[in-house]
Amino acid sequence: MNQPLRVAVAGLGTVGAAVVQLLDRRANALASGSGRAIEVRAVSARSRRERGLPLDRFTWFDDPVALARDPGTDVLVELIGGEGGAALDAVSAALEVGKPVVTANKALLARHGVELAVRAEAAGVTVGFEAAVAGGVPIVRTLRESLLGARIERVRGILNGTCNYILTRMEAEGLTFAECLADAQRLGYAEADPAFDIEGHDTAHKLALLTSLAFGTRVDPDGIHVEGITSITQADLRAADELGFRIKLLGVATRTEAGIEQRVHPTMVPKGSSIAQVEHVTNAVAIESDAVPQLALMGPGAGGEATASAVIGDLVDVARGLRVAPFGRPAAELAEPVRAPMQTHRGGYYVRLLVQDRPGAAAAIASRLAEQGISLESIVQRRRPGQDGDAVPVILTTHATHEAAVRAALAAVSGDGHVTQAPQLIRIERE
Amino acid sequence: MNQPLRVAVAGLGTVGAAVVQLLDRRANALASGSGRAIEVRAVSARSRRERGLPLDRFTWFDDPVALARDPGTDVLVELIGGEGGAALDAVSAALEVGKPVVTANKALLARHGVELAVRAEAAGVTVGFEAAVAGGVPIVRTLRESLLGARIERVRGILNGTCNYILTRMEAEGLTFAECLADAQRLGYAEADPAFDIEGHDTAHKLALLTSLAFGTRVDPDGIHVEGITSITQADLRAADELGFRIKLLGVATRTEAGIEQRVHPTMVPKGSSIAQVEHVTNAVAIESDAVPQLALMGPGAGGEATASAVIGDLVDVARGLRVAPFGRPAAELAEPVRAPMQTHRGGYYVRLLVQDRPGAAAAIASRLAEQGISLESIVQRRRPGQDGDAVPVILTTHATHEAAVRAALAAVSGDGHVTQAPQLIRIERE
Repeated sequence: MNQPLRVAVAGLGTVGAAVVQLLDRRANALASGSGRAIEVRAVSARSRRERGLPLDRFTWFDDPVALARDPGTDVLVELIGGEGGAALDAVSAALEVGKPVVTANKALLARHGVELAVRAEAAGVTVGFEAAVAGGVPIVRTLRESLLGARIERVRGILNGTCNYILTRMEAEGLTFAECLADAQRLGYAEADPAFDIEGHDTAHKLALLTSLAFGTRVDPDGIHVEGITSITQADLRAADELGFRIKLLGVATRTEAGIEQRVHPTMVPKGSSIAQVEHVTNAVAIESDAVPQLALMGPGAGGEATASAVIGDLVDVARGLRVAPFGRPAAELAEPVRAPMQTHRGGYYVRLLVQDRPGAAAAIASRLAEQGISLESIVQRRRPGQDGDAVPVILTTHATHEAAVRAALAAVSGDGHVTQAPQLIRIERE
Repeated sequence: MNQPLRVAVAGLGTVGAAVVQLLDRRANALASGSGRAIEVRAVSARSRRERGLPLDRFTWFDDPVALARDPGTDVLVELIGGEGGAALDAVSAALEVGKPVVTANKALLARHGVELAVRAEAAGVTVGFEAAVAGGVPIVRTLRESLLGARIERVRGILNGTCNYILTRMEAEGLTFAECLADAQRLGYAEADPAFDIEGHDTAHKLALLTSLAFGTRVDPDGIHVEGITSITQADLRAADELGFRIKLLGVATRTEAGIEQRVHPTMVPKGSSIAQVEHVTNAVAIESDAVPQLALMGPGAGGEATASAVIGDLVDVARGLRVAPFGRPAAELAEPVRAPMQTHRGGYYVRLLVQDRPGAAAAIASRLAEQGISLESIVQRRRPGQDGDAVPVILTTHATHEAAVRAALAAVSGDGHVTQAPQLIRIERE
């Protein structure tokens, strides 16, 4: 048996604690599968409070940078979180001393992934980040290893468990966004400050990493069109149901003629599609390529042990001596992504308007859309039982058209003074 | 750039041709991702007929063993097929000269996998077989690498596209088994001799490999209880529909108290479950473990390019220098599997009987089941419109019970002389 792989763990939250426990519980199987034992030797965390972990067995560091530099370990597991600060310092320090890194930190990688990859490659080590995207779902490995022989056309996924939990419960139980968010927080699915999740930024970070892996481009989080789920109402969910859709927060990256289109937004997907079946905190990723037309992976997107299992898969790679560029290709060969502007996005649209209840309003709206060459699939103006007031909802769906046309038409409709509030617009993906 | 990885391809059928073409089409991306070019240098096949391939560029071998031994290549891709014969000879020859092997041959590995793994490990090379199970679905990699930190409790899958295609069309279109099989053959999904697929043996070979990877046991195809789909009739599909199920041919491996239970048989799964949504030739595998409660992978289980893409993923591993034991652990450390006998299987059952239409028949059946301690969930005796004759169908479902009890009860029922043909028995998996 070879020398054990000596692991340093920076950050002992839910995932860090689970890494320590799983490495212990699965020690024999991991040693057998890796050809060497994988043992935690040193840790750092913000406090030494009781966590049910055998901390006495490990060297304690208050400073994660010192932990990263310590020659007593062979690999750093970074579970501090945050796109800069201590996490960036610790990872940088580890790579500086030629130590491979395993991390679950999507924010760090979305922001600094390519520069860290350059440093890792120079040091001849890897940065594993399976745990950073979709928790226990092996999507990084699939893109980085299994699908190198395929030309990928589209990657899309449900990448944020909090948002999917909220949308699932809103739809199933008729609750408001605020009620479901409060429950998500109570159950520990959502952070005390949930903005990062519900406004789509967490999904965007993960998507940025998937896009790079799928298309061989530099990570480009700023090239992503991002909308969250805070504007989704029961009126939208009811309309989606009647139209045969469910609403999911998707991250989508597509190869288009105009470049790589990256977007995060609530999306209407057909009820019968597999992505529509993904409920609660489950994550899912679907990949389309020339060689493998449809590949889908589903599983727990969060949770201590599921994420820890992904961290351990990356540690096994290190123990086995795998040296692979973090983004699957040398960082220097990642292409600068050509951003397809959102205005050129082509697809179907759902629009919900609240319209002054006077003759000709629906006709005026329809003609504004026609002026932009938009072909309507359906338009319904209907007052619901119990709805009062001067305004009546108009819900329309379009055949495939361009974002720019829809935006122009809605601006014209608003200018006509028919609508009493900003239109709701949700993109439709039929397949 | 390092030396190219020089590939020998044995077998130029649909998959072999696709491997040659994809390696060509994706040459740049593969070189970038692998750190070296991956180039076909030599081939062998049964005939030199025209295949649209640039055969002039490759060294031709009539004998796959000579191809395997040839020092002009670094890795053998075995796509000959068959559990022995030329495939076994070629793979053995490659390992003998220390050449890694990539294969799509489940029959070969189910029968000789462990002994080949021993030889590969002794030579310090690997045998990649992602393409042997579920085509383009990266299930081997997931079990061998991602999930080493998790204790797996159950693996189950739809692993044969031909059977799933037949069952999907029988259910959707009310066609007979024979009609759907003929269509599958016409479309190239089924072999001219379809017995291997429809009798469940192909699924069993794949399951044997998954079981070994999941539980760290020696490959044990002879320990699998195997039933095919040839006995499934429209009466069963209609009954399944009324009961809220679909019928799928599943391969299931479960860790039980009695040992590892491996079984392949038609199974009733709830209509709302994700495995029930898997249609036509799509394959799917679901894995349950302590750390990752539910992980599911779905994609094309066959097809030249999808399978070729899996072969190429394994070639990328070889090009990157990954050395991993073929079954994820050293062959010598694979445990001898304790076989849980099928008689101890516990689950729900569907039974369809054709019963003499005389008073008391249903009551007699129900009491035979009660004698075995079997708790009925439902029992329906109903003549369908247009059905004539003395016999009437009785369809019953049970709560969870043991296979031995059901077998004993049905033997008693048959002995009573109430039934006019052998009972149909289909196992139910609710989750």
